[in-house]
Amino acid sequence: MDDCVFCAIVAGTLPAALVDEDERTLAFLDITAVTDGHTLVVPKVHAADLWEITADDAAAVMRAVHRMAARIRDVLAPDGLTLFQANRPAGWQDVFHLHVHLVPRRDGDRLTRPWTAAPVPPESLYGTRDLLRPREERP
Amino acid sequence: MDDCVFCAIVAGTLPAALVDEDERTLAFLDITAVTDGHTLVVPKVHAADLWEITADDAAAVMRAVHRMAARIRDVLAPDGLTLFQANRPAGWQDVFHLHVHLVPRRDGDRLTRPWTAAPVPPESLYGTRDLLRPREERP
Repeated sequence: MDDCVFCAIVAGTLPAALVDEDERTLAFLDITAVTDGHTLVVPKVHAADLWEITADDAAAVMRAVHRMAARIRDVLAPDGLTLFQANRPAGWQDVFHLHVHLVPRRDGDRLTRPWTAAPVPPESLYGTRDLLRPREERP
Repeated sequence: MDDCVFCAIVAGTLPAALVDEDERTLAFLDITAVTDGHTLVVPKVHAADLWEITADDAAAVMRAVHRMAARIRDVLAPDGLTLFQANRPAGWQDVFHLHVHLVPRRDGDRLTRPWTAAPVPPESLYGTRDLLRPREERP
């Protein structure tokens, strides 16, 4: 897709620190790396987000993420790993070609939790639960 | 696995606001919902994290995530959607059965970005890039 930087990286017309490739996916280091080894996995086909990609390509991205997670563990031995995947500006997306962030984590690194987990009353979930069930199972 | 709350939900011995199920995965609303429709997708098999799950189960989880993302869009029409997946305490994991968070987002909601993106010099990535390439492609 014209004007898409990740499509340009896939096409080889924009340089990137490539670390992995298969038939459907490409992985490279994030140029705005937040920790050492911060990696992005993208589908080769242009898909803006999780609502545009096919299930097959999403699964292929996850297989590449799984493979890169193992390699990051073996090579960098981080204390943890956090995945992020942002859709639409409200979801914090800023490059509109689907990508999964793999962020190797260290105890005491400079990331901050995006929310504080606090229990809600279970019954407060029932309305949304009924809406989100498969159509044929909704009350 | 004994003492695993998500295994208990999969087994049906602990209640949860279930929204989706297939052969390999289960989805339910997070009891610590940060926004309306905050959903967790888990593999039915116990796997602590991304380093323990098989590639096939990881791909199945992503297919379920993809399906739930579409349903969330159709039913709740959020402004965005953010996925999180935490591995190990340093990665912010607090339930040790792999789970992917789907967090429907609204403009102006109360989540905070976990980091501020700032470009790094491309050449600062080369050392890690060389380490993270497939073994047979390393310099």
